[in-house]
Amino acid sequence: MSFLEKYRRATDARNSLVCVGLDPDPERLPAHLSGTHDPVSAFLKDVISATCDLVCAYKPNFAFFGALGAAGWRSLEDVLSAIPDATPVVLDFKANDIGNSARRYAQMAYDALGVDAVTVNPLMGTDAVAPFMEYQDGCAFLLCLTSNPGSADFQRLSTQDGPFYQRVARKAVEWSRTGPCGLVVGATHARELSTVRRIAPGLPFLVPGVGAQMGDPGRVIRYGSDRNGKGLLVNASRSVLYASSGRDFARAARCAAESLRVELERERAASSSA
Amino acid sequence: MSFLEKYRRATDARNSLVCVGLDPDPERLPAHLSGTHDPVSAFLKDVISATCDLVCAYKPNFAFFGALGAAGWRSLEDVLSAIPDATPVVLDFKANDIGNSARRYAQMAYDALGVDAVTVNPLMGTDAVAPFMEYQDGCAFLLCLTSNPGSADFQRLSTQDGPFYQRVARKAVEWSRTGPCGLVVGATHARELSTVRRIAPGLPFLVPGVGAQMGDPGRVIRYGSDRNGKGLLVNASRSVLYASSGRDFARAARCAAESLRVELERERAASSSA
Repeated sequence: MSFLEKYRRATDARNSLVCVGLDPDPERLPAHLSGTHDPVSAFLKDVISATCDLVCAYKPNFAFFGALGAAGWRSLEDVLSAIPDATPVVLDFKANDIGNSARRYAQMAYDALGVDAVTVNPLMGTDAVAPFMEYQDGCAFLLCLTSNPGSADFQRLSTQDGPFYQRVARKAVEWSRTGPCGLVVGATHARELSTVRRIAPGLPFLVPGVGAQMGDPGRVIRYGSDRNGKGLLVNASRSVLYASSGRDFARAARCAAESLRVELERERAASSSA
Repeated sequence: MSFLEKYRRATDARNSLVCVGLDPDPERLPAHLSGTHDPVSAFLKDVISATCDLVCAYKPNFAFFGALGAAGWRSLEDVLSAIPDATPVVLDFKANDIGNSARRYAQMAYDALGVDAVTVNPLMGTDAVAPFMEYQDGCAFLLCLTSNPGSADFQRLSTQDGPFYQRVARKAVEWSRTGPCGLVVGATHARELSTVRRIAPGLPFLVPGVGAQMGDPGRVIRYGSDRNGKGLLVNASRSVLYASSGRDFARAARCAAESLRVELERERAASSSA
């Protein structure tokens, strides 16, 4: 089943726009897991089984696995195998290279790791993005306006074609005619979310930056959702994973994810009746 | 020893600005290696031992290893361990993420894989690049103007601060005050190489795009070298690795690398006497 179909079914069945980011930080894992064979995978698998009925997607962050070397790759495979097939997986990799090499990154994501979607940095342009578009069941989430302060350095530059991030959004709409894609827009830029939504009314948005980065979930819904009040994957990582550092970490993760889900649903209800 | 010091010593000792890109394509490996335990690593290790006295660096391309899954990671580790310590290694990864995650990518490159330098996509701005700058013995090669046709889509945009790629070059000069960095400028843009060199007279340039992509090595030297006729890593991948598909592949790779080295040295001699 395609990413988009899995995503639609998961949001409908669970009334959820919550995406949980899987960023395993060895220094923040609960102490009692330190004796297990693979604490990273043990930790994340417990988080997944505690949350998988209330999220619309998971987003493993490759950086945190890659930093752990070959063992991290094995943990990532192990974690991916524990995610129920009905829940789509977005590999957060921010992949980018010339066509010849970008094709290999698409193979890594879709064939070697078997994920449903992947984040892609669009800076290198059409031929660098095209190999990801060839996976008609996948989805390439293109960095548009990222949640960090440094996004102002380049992504907000005025160009002959409007602000840089708006040109990315327009290019994504153009590219989406050849294959499935979406946009990454940080929750910390709520106003710009509505501009990007006007440019790309039909694309799914992956929205990081609520939780630890303090983006406002209510504003994400008001400014970012599509005409059906959907089209969003609102990502929280640290605020869910590390809600508790004790033995109750999985239950605490569930509470944090559920409270974000409820907050988003309340805002959706308010927006649709407004 | 730092990347920059290793690079300087290698270029001086070997009179070479040649960087060989390690992009293992399983479909192009010599047939007689197919029975070996790890054909990718067997192939690249033979190429390395045939060329390591005449290159200034190697550039493994993560995409080609990642596409092979966990086995690819092991091949990469195996290949890295076969590169003599005197020859610096640039991991071509085009890493990018917000600070918190970018730190993990720097750990992956410098700690887990133990390379000397890494390519970085600067689109996410200062805080995304900063974690790489903290490795004072490393070097972050920032994408400035890539060799592919799609580079025109975003990297050549006119901004309030000049063409986008020139702003990247200026930012790199600013960032280089906090830590070592360089720029990636494709050989296919020879004229722009001289503009970038004017903006960043002291930074090392990684220049892909000679060989299979048809960039002109002579123009790279004329337009891209620093005041000492150096400051370049001129990369060739496919034209060296796949110079022969037979049992003589390593010797053929050596000939291709040596012929590029000689061509670059001839041009350096001509430029310095001009």
